Amino acid sequence: LRQDQVEAVYGPGKTPEQCVLVVGELLSVPADGPVLLTRVDDAQVAAVLDAHPGGEVVAGTVVWRRASERAERVVVVTAGTADLPVADECAAVLDALGFRPRRITDAGVAGIHRILAEVDELLAADAVVVVAGMEGALASVVGGIAACPVVAVPTSVGYGAGLEGVTALLGMLASCAAGITVVGIDNGFGAAMAVARALPRGTRRLRVAEEPAS
Amino acid sequence: LRQDQVEAVYGPGKTPEQCVLVVGELLSVPADGPVLLTRVDDAQVAAVLDAHPGGEVVAGTVVWRRASERAERVVVVTAGTADLPVADECAAVLDALGFRPRRITDAGVAGIHRILAEVDELLAADAVVVVAGMEGALASVVGGIAACPVVAVPTSVGYGAGLEGVTALLGMLASCAAGITVVGIDNGFGAAMAVARALPRGTRRLRVAEEPAS
Amino acid sequence: LRQDQVEAVYGPGKTPEQCVLVVGELLSVPADGPVLLTRVDDAQVAAVLDAHPGGEVVAGTVVWRRASERAERVVVVTAGTADLPVADECAAVLDALGFRPRRITDAGVAGIHRILAEVDELLAADAVVVVAGMEGALASVVGGIAACPVVAVPTSVGYGAGLEGVTALLGMLASCAAGITVVGIDNGFGAAMAVARALPRGTRRLRVAEEPAS
Amino acid sequence: LRQDQVEAVYGPGKTPEQCVLVVGELLSVPADGPVLLTRVDDAQVAAVLDAHPGGEVVAGTVVWRRASERAERVVVVTAGTADLPVADECAAVLDALGFRPRRITDAGVAGIHRILAEVDELLAADAVVVVAGMEGALASVVGGIAACPVVAVPTSVGYGAGLEGVTALLGMLASCAAGITVVGIDNGFGAAMAVARALPRGTRRLRVAEEPAS
Amino acid sequence: LRQDQVEAVYGPGKTPEQCVLVVGELLSVPADGPVLLTRVDDAQVAAVLDAHPGGEVVAGTVVWRRASERAERVVVVTAGTADLPVADECAAVLDALGFRPRRITDAGVAGIHRILAEVDELLAADAVVVVAGMEGALASVVGGIAACPVVAVPTSVGYGAGLEGVTALLGMLASCAAGITVVGIDNGFGAAMAVARALPRGTRRLRVAEEPAS
Amino acid sequence: LRQDQVEAVYGPGKTPEQCVLVVGELLSVPADGPVLLTRVDDAQVAAVLDAHPGGEVVAGTVVWRRASERAERVVVVTAGTADLPVADECAAVLDALGFRPRRITDAGVAGIHRILAEVDELLAADAVVVVAGMEGALASVVGGIAACPVVAVPTSVGYGAGLEGVTALLGMLASCAAGITVVGIDNGFGAAMAVARALPRGTRRLRVAEEPAS
Amino acid sequence: LRQDQVEAVYGPGKTPEQCVLVVGELLSVPADGPVLLTRVDDAQVAAVLDAHPGGEVVAGTVVWRRASERAERVVVVTAGTADLPVADECAAVLDALGFRPRRITDAGVAGIHRILAEVDELLAADAVVVVAGMEGALASVVGGIAACPVVAVPTSVGYGAGLEGVTALLGMLASCAAGITVVGIDNGFGAAMAVARALPRGTRRLRVAEEPAS
Amino acid sequence: LRQDQVEAVYGPGKTPEQCVLVVGELLSVPADGPVLLTRVDDAQVAAVLDAHPGGEVVAGTVVWRRASERAERVVVVTAGTADLPVADECAAVLDALGFRPRRITDAGVAGIHRILAEVDELLAADAVVVVAGMEGALASVVGGIAACPVVAVPTSVGYGAGLEGVTALLGMLASCAAGITVVGIDNGFGAAMAVARALPRGTRRLRVAEEPAS
Ligand SMILES: Nc1ncnc2c1ncn2[C@@H]1O[C@H](COP(=O)(O)O)[C@@H](O)[C@H]1O
Ligand SMILES: Nc1ncnc2c1ncn2[C@@H]1O[C@H](COP(=O)(O)O)[C@@H](O)[C@H]1O
Ligand SMILES: Nc1ncnc2c1ncn2[C@@H]1O[C@H](COP(=O)(O)O)[C@@H](O)[C@H]1O
Ligand SMILES: Nc1ncnc2c1ncn2[C@@H]1O[C@H](COP(=O)(O)O)[C@@H](O)[C@H]1O
Ligand SMILES: [Mg+2]
Ligand SMILES: [Mg+2]
Ligand SMILES: [Mg+2]
Ligand SMILES: [Mg+2]
Ligand SMILES: [Mg+2]
Ligand SMILES: [Mg+2]
Ligand SMILES: [Mg+2]
Ligand SMILES: [Mg+2]
Repeated sequence: LRQDQVEAVYGPGKTPEQCVLVVGELLSVPADGPVLLTRVDDAQVAAVLDAHPGGEVVAGTVVWRRASERAERVVVVTAGTADLPVADECAAVLDALGFRPRRITDAGVAGIHRILAEVDELLAADAVVVVAGMEGALASVVGGIAACPVVAVPTSVGYGAGLEGVTALLGMLASCAAGITVVGIDNGFGAAMAVARALPRGTRRLRVAEEPAS
Repeated sequence: LRQDQVEAVYGPGKTPEQCVLVVGELLSVPADGPVLLTRVDDAQVAAVLDAHPGGEVVAGTVVWRRASERAERVVVVTAGTADLPVADECAAVLDALGFRPRRITDAGVAGIHRILAEVDELLAADAVVVVAGMEGALASVVGGIAACPVVAVPTSVGYGAGLEGVTALLGMLASCAAGITVVGIDNGFGAAMAVARALPRGTRRLRVAEEPAS
Repeated sequence: LRQDQVEAVYGPGKTPEQCVLVVGELLSVPADGPVLLTRVDDAQVAAVLDAHPGGEVVAGTVVWRRASERAERVVVVTAGTADLPVADECAAVLDALGFRPRRITDAGVAGIHRILAEVDELLAADAVVVVAGMEGALASVVGGIAACPVVAVPTSVGYGAGLEGVTALLGMLASCAAGITVVGIDNGFGAAMAVARALPRGTRRLRVAEEPAS
Repeated sequence: LRQDQVEAVYGPGKTPEQCVLVVGELLSVPADGPVLLTRVDDAQVAAVLDAHPGGEVVAGTVVWRRASERAERVVVVTAGTADLPVADECAAVLDALGFRPRRITDAGVAGIHRILAEVDELLAADAVVVVAGMEGALASVVGGIAACPVVAVPTSVGYGAGLEGVTALLGMLASCAAGITVVGIDNGFGAAMAVARALPRGTRRLRVAEEPAS
Repeated sequence: LRQDQVEAVYGPGKTPEQCVLVVGELLSVPADGPVLLTRVDDAQVAAVLDAHPGGEVVAGTVVWRRASERAERVVVVTAGTADLPVADECAAVLDALGFRPRRITDAGVAGIHRILAEVDELLAADAVVVVAGMEGALASVVGGIAACPVVAVPTSVGYGAGLEGVTALLGMLASCAAGITVVGIDNGFGAAMAVARALPRGTRRLRVAEEPAS
Repeated sequence: LRQDQVEAVYGPGKTPEQCVLVVGELLSVPADGPVLLTRVDDAQVAAVLDAHPGGEVVAGTVVWRRASERAERVVVVTAGTADLPVADECAAVLDALGFRPRRITDAGVAGIHRILAEVDELLAADAVVVVAGMEGALASVVGGIAACPVVAVPTSVGYGAGLEGVTALLGMLASCAAGITVVGIDNGFGAAMAVARALPRGTRRLRVAEEPAS
Repeated sequence: LRQDQVEAVYGPGKTPEQCVLVVGELLSVPADGPVLLTRVDDAQVAAVLDAHPGGEVVAGTVVWRRASERAERVVVVTAGTADLPVADECAAVLDALGFRPRRITDAGVAGIHRILAEVDELLAADAVVVVAGMEGALASVVGGIAACPVVAVPTSVGYGAGLEGVTALLGMLASCAAGITVVGIDNGFGAAMAVARALPRGTRRLRVAEEPAS
Repeated sequence: LRQDQVEAVYGPGKTPEQCVLVVGELLSVPADGPVLLTRVDDAQVAAVLDAHPGGEVVAGTVVWRRASERAERVVVVTAGTADLPVADECAAVLDALGFRPRRITDAGVAGIHRILAEVDELLAADAVVVVAGMEGALASVVGGIAACPVVAVPTSVGYGAGLEGVTALLGMLASCAAGITVVGIDNGFGAAMAVARALPRGTRRLRVAEEPAS
């Protein structure tokens, strides 16, 4: 029914041949939206680039028809080194959509000065993605600073009581920062798509005079 | 740090006197944003309206300084009768923020024609909140139709395998509809606040000419 | 006590020798029902086909004494590519039982038009098996369309919040579509056997005149 | 889309007025199918019988337009006394649908002779519903005896390690009896509806000559 | 074997008579340590004060032989209003032990300026107890600021995804702030006792010249 | 404090050298009880047999000083092929203790005639160990037949809803057969030791005349 | 099939009339075994004692035909005050079976001297039941001292991390004391029945000369 | 904000190059605190020792600038062999901090005499770390003996019902020994850091005259 901005194929579990086929179908539509193949392995990359030249590989994602740059400011924040792969996937998808996300890294809340040094960046953002494992507390702190849409991505990094992302997931859902939202564990792709929903292409938010009160 | 659009006090666990005090402090600030007291009981309502006249009570929420109407179209969809209280709280908070949300009710996916009859409404929306318990499948279907931000609220209705909202929560997080986001179980308030983040007051999304591609 | 329609041996954890032995015993009974060895590896296949020629290998299942074709219409629906192996096992067992199942693939509910295009197929079915991972919502939608027995198979595909099939399982059990039933995670075999129970061999459902009301 | 055999309204959480309204709408359709209001309390019963005379109350369910008797044999088996309310709801819905279910009670597997005394009844059945809490083992034993559709209903009876039905639910899903299916915890209604799907009204299963083998 | 600093009786589930008896035994020992009866109801209070005059009631705890004031600085921090009862019990036990704890309230991390305003207090502390529900993030932030022992108490406040304290518990255990420790959900008593272990009565920590390196 | 009948060393995680050392210490005590090293790998076996000749290897267990045969009848029952390794370990330990256990295999309750064929064996037993995965129902059935101690061992075999033994564990704990007891998942060793506690070496149960009633 | 030593009816969920009926049937059998009605409320007690005089009420259990005293020594150990009701039920059932159990109370392992003071009692026991909530550690300590059958009963006492008995249950199952066994949460009745299986009525364990080694 | 005593880098998931870089930055600060790289593999060790000579490797941890010896007595207790790796990491970090911890090994509570033999050591300790898997009961027993800070580390050793450390974790949190605290599963590092918080460097606890009572 709806017109998607982007077509994305999830790589794992598909043979290189299946990848070539599905990507080929999507590219055959004379639309201008990007086409993505995510979480690829080497064999899949080789096959699809051979069949469909012009794809760029970033952070395990192959991108065709990367969108032109957009004006909105999107920030991707990570707590620790181990959250980087999920954040990288998110950034790669954002980039394919035309956003050129800024990155804030190593901003775990146990060193609260690190995220405080980025307050201006957060206040200026049109959307923020927070990628964090372990206790996921970073999302609450960022959500309390930024006024824009904040999408939290729990990651499965860490060991023991991190419960492979469930601890971060629960913490983000139970966050005391009003209005932050959450996507599935390690779902950097989903967070990028949520940003795309909030900042629809071909539009711009402009200040307007307020309507008189009811 | 940030300027909130709204101040909300969570009623449960507070004495009527505590409610009067906290609400009084918030109203004493000469700001123009709404003040809310949520999930109130009768004694709390009596006390705060006596001390701070002018509050309106809607769906268990007392609202002071209700915002003037805004132009954006927000839709709140529910699956079944039992989801209504959570959706009502969400709608009351949206209303306080100036949104006049449209409601789609009884749209459970086991009767798929019901949500299909609302496709035009969903395509025209600036934001959609989906409130659903049991298996939470409605969020996936709506997320596949609407292109705008879709915030899913799992509810604790139902019995047995609904696990008091956990089944709907997990289903929404694992949804195959890209870019939908989730808030905590029964958190209609949080969903309204997420909408407010996506549609910041005093701005309007306008169509713009595309920038040339990179 | 009962006369089984089929004898099935579960391969994993058995040595090739054990497989040869058990299958041999089952084939030695002069019955006309099919004999199956499921989830086999290469060594097991080599051994049993050597000892007991005439078996056919489909989707990891070896079939002896495949049943003759039956008239009932059985449909196996899948949501995504990753659900195919489970659906294939189900289809192979159905085929051994004499059903020649129709397949509907890639019918995830986030693109609701895909399953809607198959409404006639679903209305004409005598039984439907729905194989889906992630949030499992497809079972609710199909259960709302088809009037016949609908058996839902949750699959362990997906990552993170899919919880290795538990999310789909819970969602299917909590489904708002009345009368659909569920088998264990990834249990395509069990779903085929449930269909066999609903459509007993050697019988046919025929329209009859209604009895007068009580 | 589909033509339901029955319209059922779930009582809990609805006001008596809402019940009167919804039931009224359903009865106003000049169809011949039964209308049910389930899990009612006294106030709801009083209101709906006053507004819509002719309803019969059985096991917390109000039934209008009870279907005429059907020929198929349906058996409802329970393990212990505490499973009776769920089985009673199931039997009431089956009765409204025209089945006059036979009941086997107190057949817990710790006294295996009790269910063995009913083997003939089980072999003659067209469908069996097994209602059991605690470890749910009864479903496996019955599924090993009966060749027809066996629908298992886990119940939340018992304490401690029964985990409010989750233990029985898991046990039934993991059952070694091939082809039994499961509905949600305490969902006697769902089990009855599953039987209705397997034994569609206005048809009868008749023995036919086998088709020649493929 | 060891000499306890304090004797504590857990009130719930004991009759007033049992309380009188147990407290009487403890007071009969000519020791100088405090005796506590925790989580009392009105009947228990009446009975024990009648039998054993001299007890003081604070935050549901009856205290006999309250210890003289000690020099160490202990801080009890709470995130929200609903955490206060647990923090109050902790403070009452600390007080009975001779600590006169300072309180920091309403310091949830979604308003990070609130805890930042207390940095000097935290740096000067000899021990800190952090009492927080929901996502429990406050413990990580405090643990990153204070260098002394930080004991985290998860509370069961909040609803939905807070899972009655489990979310906060997991978040605190998975905290990225090195060296913070955790006690059971709502166990304010245990946190106070942990402080008592870290700051043994009758001793004082004094600066010493460092030993030469190995 | 107590005199153990047997000394057992758990192999996994120990180097061959550690195994040699610990076993050596135990054998150096001039007692007459057996010494066991369980769950060994090849390198451990080679090392310990070299250092301490005379050990026998059965089912992954090395046994020194195997006890002389005892008169009591112990039965080890298994549901399926996959339960055999756990049952084998249990039988090996029982054998080391002097019991020569009888084995009943492939007695899953979905074919209830299989365990019924062994009623006499069960009635004559002094103790029964039931080893079963999946839904664990076999323990309930056996517990309803045998009057002697019945020790249930849940196994982690099976897939999906078996939850790696948790389903069987819960089912056995919630069993409606009074007085059966349970040990940890896959803990065949523990079950054998429980039998040893019930049937202490050097004693024999003999019929006695009843004391007169109180 | 088997001859039970005792007939027990579980009271909760039964009407007083149902209780009278079932107890009446059991008493009508001219056997000499005890009849129990457990977990009764006042109305049930009044009804059954009126209909069936001669029952004695102990710890919520009504006992008819209490067995004559037996010589075996059974000990019931509890960790804390809150475990007493479960232990009392266990002792009442043991008493009905003819055992006159000794009680050791308040023996929580945090005061290890308390259980050490009872070592002689434990060494002399023929069977021990350990009833403990919270972390359930008492079972491991007792299992390391006593050589006889040790049955552990986890209780649902405690709050927060006790998880209503699950923590104690898991701890007992994972115990490092070899050969202790576990029954369901709060299942004092089951533990008593397990003792009855280990010490069959009408027999006595006597020392015998050892058989010569194999 | 705060001055850390130690800088620790978590090795897993970092390339050798990343390790060299981060360690280099930390060593470049002319501070006197130790620098740690934990859980290293061979390639990481080779790279960092090459780039930054002077590091010592103990128990998978590389230590630079090991602190001079301190006077406080710290004890690390383990229940079984399998807990040793976690305890070794804890001891290595303690050693880097200047503590020279004493070790008590193989002190599982099923042989209670083993920990009782160490009572004097425990009473003399300034801090105790208890490392235990399975049921974690050792922490309760030690906490009941020692009066100083007791930090419990649950380990993921064991199988089945140990649930990879969750059982020990829950047991330690629910412990009846007042004032013991807990860190995450397998988090030996965190326990060492908790000891460092309780015993701050450059200070010494000295006995003082008591203040007069209030
Ligand atoms: N109905 C509600 N549901 C969820 N969160 C709420 C609700 N009402 C208020 N809140 C949140 O709770 C915070 C106030 O908590 P408190 O300080 O305890 O009153 C607000 O800032 C909101 O973020
Ligand atoms: N007793 C019951 N148990 C489970 N589901 C029920 C029951 N009664 C009605 N339902 C289902 O609930 C739906 C109606 O929900 P509602 O629209 O809230 O009345 C029906 O279509 C049935 O699928
Ligand atoms: N409020 C409390 N919260 C947690 N534990 C407590 C509390 N009060 C007492 N306790 C513990 O419970 C033990 C006493 O339990 P009991 O013997 O049942 O009175 C004490 O030794 C404390 O360890
Ligand atoms: N072995 C360890 N176990 C647990 N936490 C550790 C360990 N080693 C380092 N850490 C923590 O991890 C943080 C460093 O994480 P990273 O920035 O990813 O290197 C340190 O500040 C410590 O708090
Ligand atoms: Mg970090
Ligand atoms: Mg509905
Ligand atoms: Mg799809
Ligand atoms: Mg029964
Ligand atoms: Mg707050
Ligand atoms: Mg079998
Ligand atoms: Mg105690
Ligand atoms: Mg040990």
